[in-house]
Order: sequence, then structure tokens, then C-alpha cells
Amino acid sequence: MRRFNSWIVGGVVVGALAGAAALMAAAGEQMSLADATKPQYTADGKLKSPDPAIFREWVQLGTPVTPNDQNNGVAAFPEFHNTYVAPWAWAEFKKNGVWPDGTVLAKELVLVGEKQASSGKGYFGGEFHGLDVAVKDSKKNPETPNNWAYYNFNHAAPPYAPEAAAQPKANCSSCHEANAGPADDYTFIKYYPIAREAKAKVKAKSAPAK
Amino acid sequence: MRRFNSWIVGGVVVGALAGAAALMAAAGEQMSLADATKPQYTADGKLKSPDPAIFREWVQLGTPVTPNDQNNGVAAFPEFHNTYVAPWAWAEFKKNGVWPDGTVLAKELVLVGEKQASSGKGYFGGEFHGLDVAVKDSKKNPETPNNWAYYNFNHAAPPYAPEAAAQPKANCSSCHEANAGPADDYTFIKYYPIAREAKAKVKAKSAPAK
Repeated sequence: MRRFNSWIVGGVVVGALAGAAALMAAAGEQMSLADATKPQYTADGKLKSPDPAIFREWVQLGTPVTPNDQNNGVAAFPEFHNTYVAPWAWAEFKKNGVWPDGTVLAKELVLVGEKQASSGKGYFGGEFHGLDVAVKDSKKNPETPNNWAYYNFNHAAPPYAPEAAAQPKANCSSCHEANAGPADDYTFIKYYPIAREAKAKVKAKSAPAK
Repeated sequence: MRRFNSWIVGGVVVGALAGAAALMAAAGEQMSLADATKPQYTADGKLKSPDPAIFREWVQLGTPVTPNDQNNGVAAFPEFHNTYVAPWAWAEFKKNGVWPDGTVLAKELVLVGEKQASSGKGYFGGEFHGLDVAVKDSKKNPETPNNWAYYNFNHAAPPYAPEAAAQPKANCSSCHEANAGPADDYTFIKYYPIAREAKAKVKAKSAPAK
């Protein structure tokens, strides 16, 4: 019996999953999540969801939090925003201060959980609660500011949507254009201490001689 | 009096620590930082500081924040607590639900910066502002609960202290014992969503047969 139970991981029967995956593969349905080190698209041009089990281990750029109780109970994004980037893209950013073509930024939302702990009152990570992704892809998005496109894989508990179409400009890009701007490659690096510091180093290195 | 009080953070006089760091620099001692994938000690048994350029790219477990303005202006830790672990130790934790011998947990403090952005009111990452480290080392700490020891490399802007002696039990361990406890290996995984989820999966897998 112990042996049998060891097949069950997180409520999912692994043996059955393997079988289902084989069936789906046979049926030609591709439901697998993307490793998303580079963007991966469906045949009809939607972005495949990056796999949370992978991107949660990428470099985490920052974690702003805009809780409901600071926004009259109705924050636009009442969660922690955990923003991740793949190591290869981070390495390029550290060299150049801009995101390279092919960058995938995964912003996972995490509900506020506890608000009181031994360390004091504040905000502590609760449940995962949504996934937004920004992709810089010059081939796919030749017309958008710096080739970014923005995707929403649901603002709710996982599992997230397996694929998503790019959002209309008004939903994401207009805010990135107005509030992050071209100087920061349309990303909110001003709220990401390691990215801010990396960019300042690139700038200092490339400053003209006095 | 306010000025004097601002030096005292978590029972440690930061001014004195900064002075010690300056003295070491003046003495021309090259205190290289540790990669800290495993703990590294000085000849006299102090822990060498993990290198922020390295640990900031490890797996980030979570980011609680306990701001001053939620704690009558005087939070014990008024910063974001960015907690990182090396990938090898994280891989072991995912398998077993406990931290392996040799784990180094780096908790970097990040001041609250902006409190208002286009996404709403809240807390956004400001400047780096301190480093605490927990090390599980059965050889070095055979007598402590689960072999953990706790180190403080300054609660102030970098550069952090290059080395630190283990903190007395009352400063760190007693709180971890009382508020994290043996069930969570004396670490605050209840505030780290990915660690909480990983541990739940291990637990489900090892549940006794019905």
C-alpha cells in the first residue's frame, strides 16, 4: 500500500498522468507547459503558459505588494507581484541594461496571507493567485514599443490557462508605456532593486570620460 | 535620542559594526566573500559572508514585509525580507520537505521605497539594507535545534560585514524555536508559498495508506 500511495503526488496520480500525456500526444493535443526560457507559441499564435514549477526557480527581480487594505478594499492588483526572469536573459541584462530579444518576464500574483507574525504586522505570502507574462519578441511583435507583448493567464488560483492571446494595448502596454517608459525598456525595474542596481552599473561603465 | 535609537536594530549597534568594517578595510585585509553554496568559515570559526551578487540569483523563497507604518513607526524589521536558498538545497527540500545538512538561507533586507505607483498604494522595493543568514551544519552546530546557527552581517546598507560570529540563542534561535518550530525545521516556510507547497507535496506522497 505504501508503494501505491507513493505514486500520488499533490493529489495527482502520476501513473495516470503519464498515461494521459501519452494519450494527448497520440491525439496530437499539445497541453504541456512551456519551459519558457524562450517564448513558445501555439499554431494559432497564442503564447504557451510558462511552467510555474520552472519559472519560480528563475531569478526573482522583485516583489511589490499593493494590498486591498491600502486601496479602499479594491486594489487593481491586491497581491504580491513576484516577477521572475530566466537566467540567460538576466545575464544579458546585467551586461547591457536592457532586456534581450526573447526575454520572458513572468509575474505571478500571490495573495496576502497572514498579516501578523512574530516579526510584526505586515504582509506575508498566501496562495498563488494569477499569472501575467511579458514577452519581448521582435519577430512576433515588430510594431509594439520595444517589441513587448503582454499576456494574462488568469488572475485566480492555479492551474493557470495553458495558453493566452496577447492583450490589447489598453489593458497592459499603455500603462507600461506611461509609467515604466522607454528609459527602462517599458519594465518596472524602478521597483526591482537588483535590476535597478545592475542598470546603474552598466550606465556607470559606459559613462563618457571626464 | 532618535538618532541614537536609529543605530540600534535588533539589539545590534550598527555604528560599531560599520566602524569595525572600516578598520578592517584600513588594515588592508582582503575579505573575499563566500559563494556560500555551502557554509564557509574563517580560521576562528566565523561564517564568511555569502556574496550578494551570487545569492540574489538563488531560488527566492518569499518576501514578507513588515513596514514601520504598520508597526507604530518602529518595526523590528521594517524591510522586505528577501529569503534565498541555493538551488542544490532547494532540490533536496523538494524531495524531503526538510533542509539538508549544509543549507545556507540568506535573508536580505530591502527598505520600503515607493509607496504609491500606477498599480496602487502599497510597498515597493527600495534599497538593500541588511543581511541575516541561517546555516544548518551538523558538524559546526551539533547542539543547536536541527543544527541551525544564525548570523547577522549588519542591518544597514551594503557592503555588509565580511564575516560574523553566530548570534546568541536569544537574538534569533529562540524566536525560530517558538514561532517556526520543529515541524517546519525552524524556518518560516509558512510565509514562503513555494516551500509550503513543496512540503505539502512531500507530505501527501508519504501519507500512510488508508
